[in-house]
Amino acid sequence: MKVHGAVFTTATRKVFACLYEKELEFELVPVDMRAGHHKKEPFISLNPFGQVPAFEDGDMTLFESRAINLYIAHAYEDKGTQLIYHGKKMAILSMWMQVEANQFDPVASKLVWELVIKLIFGMTTDEAVVEVQEAKLGQVLDIYEVRLGQSKYLGGDDFTLVDLHHLPNIQYLMGTQVKKLFDSRPHVNAWCTDILARPAWLKVLAMQPNN
Amino acid sequence: MKVHGAVFTTATRKVFACLYEKELEFELVPVDMRAGHHKKEPFISLNPFGQVPAFEDGDMTLFESRAINLYIAHAYEDKGTQLIYHGKKMAILSMWMQVEANQFDPVASKLVWELVIKLIFGMTTDEAVVEVQEAKLGQVLDIYEVRLGQSKYLGGDDFTLVDLHHLPNIQYLMGTQVKKLFDSRPHVNAWCTDILARPAWLKVLAMQPNN
Repeated sequence: MKVHGAVFTTATRKVFACLYEKELEFELVPVDMRAGHHKKEPFISLNPFGQVPAFEDGDMTLFESRAINLYIAHAYEDKGTQLIYHGKKMAILSMWMQVEANQFDPVASKLVWELVIKLIFGMTTDEAVVEVQEAKLGQVLDIYEVRLGQSKYLGGDDFTLVDLHHLPNIQYLMGTQVKKLFDSRPHVNAWCTDILARPAWLKVLAMQPNN
Repeated sequence: MKVHGAVFTTATRKVFACLYEKELEFELVPVDMRAGHHKKEPFISLNPFGQVPAFEDGDMTLFESRAINLYIAHAYEDKGTQLIYHGKKMAILSMWMQVEANQFDPVASKLVWELVIKLIFGMTTDEAVVEVQEAKLGQVLDIYEVRLGQSKYLGGDDFTLVDLHHLPNIQYLMGTQVKKLFDSRPHVNAWCTDILARPAWLKVLAMQPNN
């Protein structure tokens, strides 16, 4: 198995977290994004949209991190952590996967851009954008607070791909002023503490950018 | 089965198209969005995010149109059109579902907003936004053109949820200047002609807003 990606990106980290949860061996093929290698051959033969990560498993080539993780969770269901369900429980899990992708990620990604990535590149945070997105994130987390009062994890009673897909953005936001939005909601706070401490996630954080 | 939604919205139309493809009976419960009923009880008990559609099937309540359709396609796999695959073919299909959601829909939705919805509400189209989004859509459709030269449909050799999820935005864009972007690419053009003529889709278009 090969992951073509960059260690610092949230999308690549989603796939690493999944592979570590499933206890699968993989090779990282670094893509030098600063040099724009994700927009050139040979990478765009793996993903014509020019976005990391891309994934290879034998003759299977996939891109889109959530689709890669669904493949891994189904194809290696008997390995490591059970990250999916079946039947009606899977329908509920799929719904919360869509919530992460459509409600949480667009807001969280904008905040990570403004409060983390821009600083790395010496750019200036747009405080007006932060204010708007913080308010939106608060509304999403209000709904998560209710949900997490009803079930231990977002997708159900077990840690699944839903929770895993939140990890990279939450990790970055925990180092910013946005941390207070997670800390101030008891169920959200307990959930964050729990999932951020998973051994598989700590392995992702231990990966070095030059690996 | 009940669909709580509004006939003109692209997300609600995705679910109608799926139900008609599967030849399933359903009841439409109209949500008066102009009166803001999607942001109030009883609707937000069905979807706390306040977005149409919401879906009920016996004791199952779901929101997020793509998750609803995955549920329908799996739970009623033996009815009507086979809209999903299994195993590796499903992994490819899932990847293209993510492409629709993450690459096509954000661009297409902005164009539908500027060129269709704003006109309905007497607002003015922002030509600068249109120019940027048209260029982005062209890049996405260039990749679709290659893909559709390799397989008849985006998810594989058969019409699946991937193609179905494109229908509502494409239908609206076909009535705008953006039509030329679809028409000028032969494989994309043939694909659009094919999927827009599906009987299930024509049934969606025949639904009246006051139903």
